[in-house]
Amino acid sequence: MVYTRANGSRWSYSENVIRKKETGMSRNRKFYLEDIPLDEAWRRLIMAMESSGSWVAFPGEELPLDEALGRVTAAPVWAALSSPGYHASAMDGYAVRSADTIGATETSPKRLRIGPEGPASYVDTGDPIPSWADAVIQIEHTQHIEEEVGGELIEIQAGVAPWTAIRPMGEDMVATELVLPANYRLKPVDLGALAGCGHATVSVRRRPRVAVIPTGTELVTVEQAAQAGLKTGDIIEYNSLVLASQIREWGGLPTRYPIVADDYERIRETVREAAVTHDLVLVNAGSSAGSEDFTSSIVEELGTLLVHGVAIRPGHPVVLGTVTERHTPIIGVPGYPVSCALTGEIFVEPLISHWLGLTPREKPKVKATISRKLLSPMGEDEWVRVTVGRVGERTVAAPLSRGAGVITSLVRADGIVRIPRFSEGVDAGQDVTVELYRDPSEIDRTIVHIGSHDLCLDILSQYLADSGRRFSSSNAGSLGGLMALRRGDAHLAGSHLLDPATGEYNISYIKQYLPNLPVVLMTFMQREQGLIVAPGNPKGIKGLADLARDDVRYVNRQRGAGTRVLLDYHLEKLGIEPGNVKGYQREEYTHLAVAVAVQSGAVDCGLGIAAAAHALRLDFIPFEKERYDLVIPRIHYDSDLLQPLFDLIQGPNLRRVVDELPGYDTTHMGDIVIEL
Amino acid sequence: MVYTRANGSRWSYSENVIRKKETGMSRNRKFYLEDIPLDEAWRRLIMAMESSGSWVAFPGEELPLDEALGRVTAAPVWAALSSPGYHASAMDGYAVRSADTIGATETSPKRLRIGPEGPASYVDTGDPIPSWADAVIQIEHTQHIEEEVGGELIEIQAGVAPWTAIRPMGEDMVATELVLPANYRLKPVDLGALAGCGHATVSVRRRPRVAVIPTGTELVTVEQAAQAGLKTGDIIEYNSLVLASQIREWGGLPTRYPIVADDYERIRETVREAAVTHDLVLVNAGSSAGSEDFTSSIVEELGTLLVHGVAIRPGHPVVLGTVTERHTPIIGVPGYPVSCALTGEIFVEPLISHWLGLTPREKPKVKATISRKLLSPMGEDEWVRVTVGRVGERTVAAPLSRGAGVITSLVRADGIVRIPRFSEGVDAGQDVTVELYRDPSEIDRTIVHIGSHDLCLDILSQYLADSGRRFSSSNAGSLGGLMALRRGDAHLAGSHLLDPATGEYNISYIKQYLPNLPVVLMTFMQREQGLIVAPGNPKGIKGLADLARDDVRYVNRQRGAGTRVLLDYHLEKLGIEPGNVKGYQREEYTHLAVAVAVQSGAVDCGLGIAAAAHALRLDFIPFEKERYDLVIPRIHYDSDLLQPLFDLIQGPNLRRVVDELPGYDTTHMGDIVIEL
Repeated sequence: MVYTRANGSRWSYSENVIRKKETGMSRNRKFYLEDIPLDEAWRRLIMAMESSGSWVAFPGEELPLDEALGRVTAAPVWAALSSPGYHASAMDGYAVRSADTIGATETSPKRLRIGPEGPASYVDTGDPIPSWADAVIQIEHTQHIEEEVGGELIEIQAGVAPWTAIRPMGEDMVATELVLPANYRLKPVDLGALAGCGHATVSVRRRPRVAVIPTGTELVTVEQAAQAGLKTGDIIEYNSLVLASQIREWGGLPTRYPIVADDYERIRETVREAAVTHDLVLVNAGSSAGSEDFTSSIVEELGTLLVHGVAIRPGHPVVLGTVTERHTPIIGVPGYPVSCALTGEIFVEPLISHWLGLTPREKPKVKATISRKLLSPMGEDEWVRVTVGRVGERTVAAPLSRGAGVITSLVRADGIVRIPRFSEGVDAGQDVTVELYRDPSEIDRTIVHIGSHDLCLDILSQYLADSGRRFSSSNAGSLGGLMALRRGDAHLAGSHLLDPATGEYNISYIKQYLPNLPVVLMTFMQREQGLIVAPGNPKGIKGLADLARDDVRYVNRQRGAGTRVLLDYHLEKLGIEPGNVKGYQREEYTHLAVAVAVQSGAVDCGLGIAAAAHALRLDFIPFEKERYDLVIPRIHYDSDLLQPLFDLIQGPNLRRVVDELPGYDTTHMGDIVIEL
Repeated sequence: MVYTRANGSRWSYSENVIRKKETGMSRNRKFYLEDIPLDEAWRRLIMAMESSGSWVAFPGEELPLDEALGRVTAAPVWAALSSPGYHASAMDGYAVRSADTIGATETSPKRLRIGPEGPASYVDTGDPIPSWADAVIQIEHTQHIEEEVGGELIEIQAGVAPWTAIRPMGEDMVATELVLPANYRLKPVDLGALAGCGHATVSVRRRPRVAVIPTGTELVTVEQAAQAGLKTGDIIEYNSLVLASQIREWGGLPTRYPIVADDYERIRETVREAAVTHDLVLVNAGSSAGSEDFTSSIVEELGTLLVHGVAIRPGHPVVLGTVTERHTPIIGVPGYPVSCALTGEIFVEPLISHWLGLTPREKPKVKATISRKLLSPMGEDEWVRVTVGRVGERTVAAPLSRGAGVITSLVRADGIVRIPRFSEGVDAGQDVTVELYRDPSEIDRTIVHIGSHDLCLDILSQYLADSGRRFSSSNAGSLGGLMALRRGDAHLAGSHLLDPATGEYNISYIKQYLPNLPVVLMTFMQREQGLIVAPGNPKGIKGLADLARDDVRYVNRQRGAGTRVLLDYHLEKLGIEPGNVKGYQREEYTHLAVAVAVQSGAVDCGLGIAAAAHALRLDFIPFEKERYDLVIPRIHYDSDLLQPLFDLIQGPNLRRVVDELPGYDTTHMGDIVIEL
């Protein structure tokens, strides 16, 4: 069926979507999933695996040392040889009998003849000590002398104690002593120790083989998408790439299967085969109780369904079970990318670790305060992705998108805050525990921005990485940024709030909302605001006055956004009631989101910056140049942490790059407007 | 030349050693190295590399995503496609016009006909929204109805707001926005994001190719040693394995060359070839100014010698230079295993990281107090390996062996304490900073033992790992253990100090040295002490009385060791003066070291435990059964941290394993002797 969009363009369901419709929607549909607490879900799985004998560490395989880096020992390793294997000289010098050196001084030195039986015999570092010797004098402490009659001698000016400069046999490892325990992950120096005590191979646990089976008729590979483009309704399959990469990192051996269409028999047969050749089977997508959700039925048919629906968010529709033939555990992994990746962390990693004889990986934890109120439904443990920074004395966590489909919320996440199922959420400023994805030391070099987002911040972020700083930006709108500064949640806030009374930017808002906080107001740049419209401007929009037209659909920005403030100001000047603007209630949070709404044909126009229109090849009706400033509390302005940022703003490189972007003016980049 | 040992056995230099002697000892020998501070050494190297243009990040190569895990981006990546690429349904349900649903309630529901043009059209999660729709009602909130006349309808009992249950186009990524910056190491979710915005490949920095060339005529491979055994004078070559493994971990591509004998021309030609085909050349061993130390001369001949000798310890004799032909940097890596591995960390890792566009890896740092006084020569930065544990409120670092040849000091190390070159050392109890090799969370689950070592502690350690505890043991002798408890440096101390007056173990010492510390004294086991002698007991030693013989050489334990206390007690009973015991001054620190000394023929006997004699197949003259106890401060006895340890001591498994070892008696394992 071909549809016509409101803006006149046409699109149709891809044939994939059509095929889906034809296979029927009501096969075995369950409407409601269980809501099993996570620990109970694990209990069921472990019990099932214990009773079938598959909840045990995997056996060892003997590998040459240079293939064993990162592998886990299957058994303790005892030294086969001592190291050193003999009493060895620790220096280049002469092996002597310490008794022969007693009494040597500067004023009455001693001379010892050089010979294989002593009293002095040359040894290099690492050479064995002759049996008659019990000390070594380093060569720098000897004088080499040739006598016509006496031959070669050394002269020494001090005696040496017994066992000087000798590495005794077994100083490092003694044959039979325990060198490494079992269930130990091998580092480079460990491999060296194993070789040093005589082992050319080591027994390490075999790696778990994990099958990753993506299912879904609407799925296409990224190669297809990159080559042929995406038809509406096509979804790029990448969950299997994420899962396979996770599995490799955790020490398993993944097999990525090709996409299997929504065909019950085909999926079932793929699962059946995979369960025979693998230790764990992951079936991706189709684990919610929707029309193409076959996984739970397949598990029931091939084995035992243990769990369908866990009280976690995202990731609720997880399926856990076992396939009878070889007692292979099977997990139905939800299709949303964040749900999928978190299912990997929550279920797959501990399984792999257990099979490798390791305790599950623990993320470093840090206490922080949450920057925004978080409502979280009771009944499910929620995994909230957050950024983390140290602002003043406080460690602050700012939540990222909660959407289960927003993979970038995991890309940008510094960590996870878990909100337990008996909690309804947390208030802004409350203490939380963050499980970190990054090293705690990275937090200390993170500059935290909360405020109005601009793509110049992305460019700044790139340059800052080269100066050893991370830049974490939360988009909260201009006013949201000022509020964050007031709470002490950020180092700086981007803001472009117009004061209608004065025509000045930001100053009056700072005075009103941050009266007691000394700040520096620095201009970042100026940028064009205007109306973003479809290419060719089919509705013939000329200016804000057209927003009152019945046939013009607008998309707004959220309350507190500088762009919205600009709109409201001008609507009032024009005498237009917000209620008369179609779509005034529809809010987007970024310039790009506004542009996307216009591009999709869902709306006709929105106020935004030129760069956003340009990015999506939309037309742009310029309106006004506005100033985008950075509001920086004095205490952070003076800090070491932010110095590289100011160096960049004052320097030539950032300026040059921003100048090339449409709608930006860097004339006043770095100017201090005022210090309040 | 064949030598006869004092004990009558014969050994000879391996032909390797003989060959070394024949190639001559005085080629170009420099006696003294420079002592360049580390930052100056780096400055010289960076300047030389900058002037030849090799101090830049490596260029990118385009790789498919599934080959790019862990690689570093060479350029920023912008989204090629939006994700979602269309307005998508977030649920299984019906796409509707929100306006059509206004006014629906429980008491006055609304009915909407199902059809492709609305007012209701079925959509699966992820399906595109029809152009006429602006919301989705999830299927669980609808009632499916069939009318004879009307066809299929849904009945709803509540209205929906616009954009409910819709994932807007670009919710995750918008085409053209920056998704990942350059110089960013790719994690699994990052690969997913790249695929999701339309990239099938990514440009990642090419990996540095590093040549690792081991040199030394005395070196043999571990395969040769494992197969044919080690001849005295042979040294197992494993530094190249450690370096190559480090290089792989840090993101480089190592080439391990076969061992090159001490032949100037051959080493030079190997270096020359390696410098053409690699980005960095590491020449191992032969960087001290000894007789076979060719590296600095080769660097001078093929290029520029920048540094020969850095003010670091271990690792002093490092060579830094460049080979002219392709300006390839070359490092002469010292031969001692610890020096070699630390040279890798100090010089090779930052080079590789720089070429990959990354900042050098930083270890997590933690503040601790040092458990022992450390003297450190001025003039060199010293890298002291330490174990770390949390004892009560304090984080305690205990130094490991300082020997540059003791690779196990790096295997066991929890971290490094750096003692700067302007410092002469640190006092016991002083604050130090530890750069950790492990995750800080591992410190919290480490049980710290300082005291008399017994191999049963190794067994305990293995079992504790299965209970999620790390067990760190420093060997300080029995009295050293009590002193450590007094300072609060350990959770428990192993002790077997005999009180001659009472014949009782440990109690009087506890009362004397720990009068104010409530402790629990628990028996671990009993073990045989006796005289360890060579197989066949060639000197016919019958008991301690024989120690007074002129022809019997003894090896003692260190002051404060329970074994030494036992010896002194019995010598006094026998009326033998310590001065009349040959070798009374020679001290070893463990039972195994005593056994090794006997095995090597350097001494005739030493007091020790049966297990140590048995381990090295030596004869044993039993003497006395002694009790080995654990002294545990009450506060740690009651802690969660130590519970698994006591569970193991009270349980059957540890007991059974220890019973099988020679000379051990577990009858009283776990008995509480007294609480003081």
